[in-house]
Amino acid sequence: MTAKTASALIIGNEILSGRTQDSNLGHLGKKLMGKGVRLMHARVLPDIEDEIVRHLNECRAVHDYVFTSGGIGPTHDDITSAGVAKAFGVPLVLNAEARARLTRHYGGEDQLNPGRLRMATLPQGAVLIDNPISTAPGFRLGNVFVLAGVPKIMQSMLDSVLPQLAGGPPILSRTIGCLIPESVIADGLRSIAASYPDLEIGSYPYFRMTGYGLSLVLRGTDPARLGPAAEELCALIRSLGGDPVRLDSESAVQAPHTAAQ
Amino acid sequence: MTAKTASALIIGNEILSGRTQDSNLGHLGKKLMGKGVRLMHARVLPDIEDEIVRHLNECRAVHDYVFTSGGIGPTHDDITSAGVAKAFGVPLVLNAEARARLTRHYGGEDQLNPGRLRMATLPQGAVLIDNPISTAPGFRLGNVFVLAGVPKIMQSMLDSVLPQLAGGPPILSRTIGCLIPESVIADGLRSIAASYPDLEIGSYPYFRMTGYGLSLVLRGTDPARLGPAAEELCALIRSLGGDPVRLDSESAVQAPHTAAQ
Repeated sequence: MTAKTASALIIGNEILSGRTQDSNLGHLGKKLMGKGVRLMHARVLPDIEDEIVRHLNECRAVHDYVFTSGGIGPTHDDITSAGVAKAFGVPLVLNAEARARLTRHYGGEDQLNPGRLRMATLPQGAVLIDNPISTAPGFRLGNVFVLAGVPKIMQSMLDSVLPQLAGGPPILSRTIGCLIPESVIADGLRSIAASYPDLEIGSYPYFRMTGYGLSLVLRGTDPARLGPAAEELCALIRSLGGDPVRLDSESAVQAPHTAAQ
Repeated sequence: MTAKTASALIIGNEILSGRTQDSNLGHLGKKLMGKGVRLMHARVLPDIEDEIVRHLNECRAVHDYVFTSGGIGPTHDDITSAGVAKAFGVPLVLNAEARARLTRHYGGEDQLNPGRLRMATLPQGAVLIDNPISTAPGFRLGNVFVLAGVPKIMQSMLDSVLPQLAGGPPILSRTIGCLIPESVIADGLRSIAASYPDLEIGSYPYFRMTGYGLSLVLRGTDPARLGPAAEELCALIRSLGGDPVRLDSESAVQAPHTAAQ
């Protein structure tokens, strides 16, 4: 089974201006890993239609899947659907099923003002993605999944499309912590990385209230490779006078605030 | 004075895997805005040299400035300097000044192991960017600023290079809050946006413990345009039965968790 890859387009001026802190990218990366799909690339785009068209076309040609987040609401700055339609060379059309859902949600035909109709106006051929929170759907077109920007809605939409993905074996990880400076362990770490070219080995220093630390992360699909690599890493840490600690929690950590190198 | 633009490359597998939540992008966007430089685009890249080369060359050709974060430490997965050198077609060389700083920091020539020397090995022509926290410098080459990934170090490096940027008039903003659903205000908002094509007007719904809300953000460089646009927006909100609230805090908010549309 060949590994599948994905990219993400995070759409919205508010992310680039720093007004809103994106959290969709990390969530997507973690969820895809469990499906054996590797998130290889992401772009953060402003609310400019031509930018969406160009970058979507670049990404969908290269990766098995593309996920977008943001820009599918009712206001003038919500232009993702228009960009996707243009990228695929299909017209924007009023989607009957989306219109029906919004009619029920808002309580009648007479409640469908232009802004609400806009959320039912999708590229021709779009397959709806359910929005159990605020109804206005996302959609799939080809290998592109168009999701909401609001994290709770995005997460719910993603959960509903994950079963549609043809992934690979889940990507597994081992995390080992120690107190050895990066610049001291770097040589030995390079040797282990060279011995395991099929694994991805990352080195992440941090400095917390409790002091300096280093997290070493090994990733791969084959437990029979991860295990021995982790053992070699622990032996390396001990040979440098350290005490390796297995850190199995793979929840995202806040970016570290400083680091010894 | 023409507006200057910038893009960012956030480098590191840990961002794409969701292990680490990036916070450098938003910080960069806000700081640049104050200098009249608009962050227009960002890419998140894995630790793959060819990817760095290609995307850096694309971005530096398009934007006045490119900022990278991450990948300048001592370990095998720190490949940003090599990627930048290759993108510019210059060799990696041992930078004498960087070497001298690291020698002082680590306490002598004999302390410069290969990992530490690696942090002094930079593209030919690189101009150092100070690192007051852990010494290993960032650097500037042409219009590219190579900064650390650790937020505190990145922020410090950014502060030291901001005075070097030829920016434009600072980008100002007004934020107005109300409790009107996006889909109700969308039409009127579109008219105002059409009347002020020189302003960027964003609509950001949120749902907090305290209930639904909508933040409307106007951005531009001319206070004489922002003021009247904000007044029209307040009048629109009142015409829809709402009560506009001036929200002047421009600190980044956590992404909202859900939203009415």
